[in-house]
Amino acid sequence: MHGDRLLLGPGPSTPYPEALEALTRPVLGHLDPEYLGVIGEISDRLRAVFRTANELTLPVSGTGSAGMEACLASLVEPGETVVVGVNGYFGERLCEVAHRGGARVVRVEAPWGTALDPADLLAAQRANPHAALLAVVAAETSTGVRNDVAPLGPELARTDTLLLVDAVTALGGTPLEVDAWQIDACYSASQKCLGAPPGLAPVTLGPRAVERMRARTTPIRSFYLDLGLLHEYFLTSPPKYHHTASSTLAYSLHAGLGRLLEEGVEQVWARHARIGTMLQEALPELGFSLVAAEGVRLPQLTAAVLPGGLDDGVARKRLLAEFGIEVGGGLGDFAGRAWRIGLMGHAATERSVVTLLGAVRELLAS
Amino acid sequence: MHGDRLLLGPGPSTPYPEALEALTRPVLGHLDPEYLGVIGEISDRLRAVFRTANELTLPVSGTGSAGMEACLASLVEPGETVVVGVNGYFGERLCEVAHRGGARVVRVEAPWGTALDPADLLAAQRANPHAALLAVVAAETSTGVRNDVAPLGPELARTDTLLLVDAVTALGGTPLEVDAWQIDACYSASQKCLGAPPGLAPVTLGPRAVERMRARTTPIRSFYLDLGLLHEYFLTSPPKYHHTASSTLAYSLHAGLGRLLEEGVEQVWARHARIGTMLQEALPELGFSLVAAEGVRLPQLTAAVLPGGLDDGVARKRLLAEFGIEVGGGLGDFAGRAWRIGLMGHAATERSVVTLLGAVRELLAS
Repeated sequence: MHGDRLLLGPGPSTPYPEALEALTRPVLGHLDPEYLGVIGEISDRLRAVFRTANELTLPVSGTGSAGMEACLASLVEPGETVVVGVNGYFGERLCEVAHRGGARVVRVEAPWGTALDPADLLAAQRANPHAALLAVVAAETSTGVRNDVAPLGPELARTDTLLLVDAVTALGGTPLEVDAWQIDACYSASQKCLGAPPGLAPVTLGPRAVERMRARTTPIRSFYLDLGLLHEYFLTSPPKYHHTASSTLAYSLHAGLGRLLEEGVEQVWARHARIGTMLQEALPELGFSLVAAEGVRLPQLTAAVLPGGLDDGVARKRLLAEFGIEVGGGLGDFAGRAWRIGLMGHAATERSVVTLLGAVRELLAS
Repeated sequence: MHGDRLLLGPGPSTPYPEALEALTRPVLGHLDPEYLGVIGEISDRLRAVFRTANELTLPVSGTGSAGMEACLASLVEPGETVVVGVNGYFGERLCEVAHRGGARVVRVEAPWGTALDPADLLAAQRANPHAALLAVVAAETSTGVRNDVAPLGPELARTDTLLLVDAVTALGGTPLEVDAWQIDACYSASQKCLGAPPGLAPVTLGPRAVERMRARTTPIRSFYLDLGLLHEYFLTSPPKYHHTASSTLAYSLHAGLGRLLEEGVEQVWARHARIGTMLQEALPELGFSLVAAEGVRLPQLTAAVLPGGLDDGVARKRLLAEFGIEVGGGLGDFAGRAWRIGLMGHAATERSVVTLLGAVRELLAS
């Protein structure tokens, strides 16, 4: 027996039917012209969703964390300084990955549940003008907070510091404009608002980032996550073999992106906004309190502190066992007392909201 | 239209039907108890195939190259020495990954098409007694050569040098005994003799390797491929979140391993031996000459120089377009003049051999 889940946690979200169906197609070799054609189409579709013309736009063979590490490993050399915005778990992860990679990390903090102040980030860059990169999580999956990254690019474009944006939960869920916002590097994940299963990490690098990578004086420490080699494999003709990428996951992401673009990027953003608001208006009536401050709430990911009557462990177990619904537990200070509810991609529907609310009402009543 | 391929290249191979079917199961969250139960079963199944009792046995979320990098990054500290056997492309890759990771690399070479001499490898270790690790590819996918790794473990067990074996093409195809041969660390890939699609890299670490990882004085440079963190996520209760692993790929590997174990590990080795021999006896009759020297030929991967009448590019294109058959091109000195033919997992059948030979006869005739 295989459980059938409504996935309303922080990701994976329940994929689009098209994305699941695509998994059953015959496996193709990693150098098959037909497969590489699909990679080309995925790159085109990713450009449309990232809102960029960047040539180096491709799916890394790994999860969002692999995308994060690919960007940091490829763009930062050991000993260089990196400014990181930290107001949640994934800001911390950026620090951890950068630190392991040999970078000097300058933290710019804000309390969990609040947004980073772009002025603070820019001030930290001015205090560290030679910083290689400034990294911010656009949608902090641990708290449901939206960090405003739009003001950063135009300022950093006048410096030697690149702007790296974590769009793991943001991409395809809330407005993100890689080119218009002058974002130099951006990564995401297949299993959230893009509506495909996990396993691929879309990455895009702009001209300044590509130039930075080319001008390195030390080799990229990771072979597997070297974005230069991935570029030569996926987007260069003839392709230069690098690793045995999975056509299965590629076809699925291709289908998820197709479904998204058929609906329209702005229409998808509007749907996420509408569905998230529907949930966020209802939760307080059931006794939940929202973690993210008003005005900076993500619609696609809601962190909410449980009402007194609900025990986290018991309630999530019942939700899964009795209703087949997954929500995520809290992270950090919110572990054991908050939930993280994702309404992403195919799961961002009215039906998801009424299903979850109905199940929670049952839990509260018994 | 989606091409339907008989995959007879160096991998991916055509997966077992059970492994394809498993892809369609509903996606589960990466912390779902049902998913983690399946990971536990995958670990058990991998132990049976690796022939080990090693507790740290798990699927890394990446391809075989990610498994390689996970082992080297987790077990070697910058500045340490690594002895690497090099008689093909993947021995070179071991050098490359180790070098990027900051290791001092000592190469022990043999010509492509011949096997490494275990005595040479052990002599290099004696000359570098503080080497952290000695790494060898058991089945060199670039040439179809089997390197004899069995004599290495007992000797290295008396030293401080760990034995790392690349079993990407070997595992489930030819005899490999992690415990009996005293192999400290070993990695493979899902898409070759295990009969699942690409995307996961089985890894197993023995007690000496785990101890080495624990005793490190520097952090593992990679977060994504840190085998200590992966152990805490996959095999520790409660699981410590690390990344969003793909239940889709896990179910597929689980099914492929199930099919393999149903047949029996030794029976699968015997099947690969029988089918590979069938091909290798027939190829010379068609004018091919085998790259690997007699006595060290892998049955699951045959590299063969083309007869005069066949142009590599044209013939492989026709094979794919007219017959829907993929074989691999040559690597290194063999690029443009040899093929690499895989008969692995579900594709290791009499039917694959007669199909390929029939198609090649057609190509030679026209």
